[in-house]
Amino acid sequence: EDAIRVAVNGYGAIGKRVVDAVRLQPDMVLAGVADVATDWRPRILEQGGVPLFGADAAHVSAMEAAGLRVTGTFDELLTRSDVVVDCTPKGRGAENARLYRDIGVKFVVQGGEAHEVAGHSFVAEVNFAEAVGRTGTRVVSCNTTSIVRTLGALAGNGLVERARGTLMRRATDPWESHMGGIMNTVVPEADIPSHQALDAQTVLPNLDVVTMAVRVPQTLAHVHMWSVDLTRPASLEEVLAAFGDSPRIARARMSDGLTAINTVKEVASDMGRPRGDLYEVVLWEEMLTVRGTELFYGYMVDNLAIVIPETIDAVRALGGWVTDAGTSIRMTNESLGIRGGVWPPV
Amino acid sequence: EDAIRVAVNGYGAIGKRVVDAVRLQPDMVLAGVADVATDWRPRILEQGGVPLFGADAAHVSAMEAAGLRVTGTFDELLTRSDVVVDCTPKGRGAENARLYRDIGVKFVVQGGEAHEVAGHSFVAEVNFAEAVGRTGTRVVSCNTTSIVRTLGALAGNGLVERARGTLMRRATDPWESHMGGIMNTVVPEADIPSHQALDAQTVLPNLDVVTMAVRVPQTLAHVHMWSVDLTRPASLEEVLAAFGDSPRIARARMSDGLTAINTVKEVASDMGRPRGDLYEVVLWEEMLTVRGTELFYGYMVDNLAIVIPETIDAVRALGGWVTDAGTSIRMTNESLGIRGGVWPPV
Repeated sequence: EDAIRVAVNGYGAIGKRVVDAVRLQPDMVLAGVADVATDWRPRILEQGGVPLFGADAAHVSAMEAAGLRVTGTFDELLTRSDVVVDCTPKGRGAENARLYRDIGVKFVVQGGEAHEVAGHSFVAEVNFAEAVGRTGTRVVSCNTTSIVRTLGALAGNGLVERARGTLMRRATDPWESHMGGIMNTVVPEADIPSHQALDAQTVLPNLDVVTMAVRVPQTLAHVHMWSVDLTRPASLEEVLAAFGDSPRIARARMSDGLTAINTVKEVASDMGRPRGDLYEVVLWEEMLTVRGTELFYGYMVDNLAIVIPETIDAVRALGGWVTDAGTSIRMTNESLGIRGGVWPPV
Repeated sequence: EDAIRVAVNGYGAIGKRVVDAVRLQPDMVLAGVADVATDWRPRILEQGGVPLFGADAAHVSAMEAAGLRVTGTFDELLTRSDVVVDCTPKGRGAENARLYRDIGVKFVVQGGEAHEVAGHSFVAEVNFAEAVGRTGTRVVSCNTTSIVRTLGALAGNGLVERARGTLMRRATDPWESHMGGIMNTVVPEADIPSHQALDAQTVLPNLDVVTMAVRVPQTLAHVHMWSVDLTRPASLEEVLAAFGDSPRIARARMSDGLTAINTVKEVASDMGRPRGDLYEVVLWEEMLTVRGTELFYGYMVDNLAIVIPETIDAVRALGGWVTDAGTSIRMTNESLGIRGGVWPPV
């Protein structure tokens, strides 16, 4: 059986992580990466032996002038690929999707694009099967992925009546934090519900969910606080078991010294995760509180990392190489070291 | 009629604000301020013509050795005062309260102390009358004051079924932010409900309220996001009218450029508020959202300033010099420039 040939379009914060994850998959081969940059970023790629492509002929020339070895144009990359993962800046994926459809290559776009760009929004543990054989799908954004995983796990056990959450979004990504200056403020979003709740409903249409969002001045991760009305009184054990259905939900213990998002990130680095990435939603175990039919909890979302396993599963689903969600999720989790349960393992 | 003689114990972040506010009241006179510091802080006071007292004889000597003109010891200050406002560090007020009771001087302690220290917890708009003639009361903490004002205004209109809030606490106070270093993290609190909900129930015992709290890395103000179940469907106008019952709840408009807590604080400075203080809870008008029987909103709390008008009203209530809440609140509001409505006035 031939390996799935995967192209990555755009070598930014998401693209670089997709590249590394694709190379860890036993059933995938990285066909190449297309970009427009001429600085250190494509140089790292090229030195790592990855076929590099320019977005078009002009960019190929510019990249070659910068001393980069370029294999060809993006069009040429697409002809030798089964699936392209679009990691270009927000909004660009919509145009690109038209090209992918014309050429007849399957595609994954990121959560910055509208649902309509692919006509399908994807979170592996909830709707992998729907994506099997499709032309394209959209991996929902980091915040939305976390919402769908956690509320999806509860809803899968028939527990969710309605969910109300406050999202504290990190101010900016670490790698571009030199552009923003030091913030000393909190920036609330005017819209209630904020878009993440609406986005979650593209995957879980019957979910009664409202989100409120603010931006806070740190660069490490998003933090969510949830208050959920359950359909019936449930024990803490039952709730833990429901979350346990997802190996992509992990639990950190404050009693283990993991009292804030920086310490949890430190664990990820110390465990050898590339770039200190957390693919899991990490819940704080001590915060989990059940009062009658109400459930409260808080967790963190590593915004660049959480969508990576989803993207890998989406690639597999589109081509129909794997048609069973559980099989793909297990392969992805194993390749990336995702285990669920207590983080770090005790 | 004689003016109320007010002593302030502790010239820290709260004490200095109480001192300034007392001096603005037509019916109060500042009897003096007691402290232990020998640095620039008491010097500012002394230069402003405020009688300065040492906590005890040893401190008087130390302060005199530092070149300060000291009027006497704290005990002597208490004999010439009707009410003492205790602004000493958290936990110290409990000991001090015993002294105040022994000497027979009325006292106000701050929200860092337990309810039991004074046996009464105070928010002017909700329970001024209960404090009239008491020996002591406790002005609840900044977060709790904001919760009681806002939910108290809604509850006073029979609107609150239950309220669930997420509190984003500022990392530290600006004046001591050199001690903490730059934080790049979010620190969640393990306990749900966090103590603020329980504290609000010392003033509104029948309120069904749960809070979750995190610490975020900024020094300007706390931010709260609330999701409230109403007792019945209500219009946005009705909700605005309920909040409008409190002149200590103001509304900022994002459309007026007030899109974050730093810009709202800038207004306070530009309007000439001492230290840029916001005595009001400031709600963002655009966030206020009603969906059937659910209400959502977000606001900011200037943690050092919000309790100042409450403290002034508490002083008046204890002595029974003013027995009508509305009269005291109007006097305090007028002296401090508190008007409610749209902030800044349009």
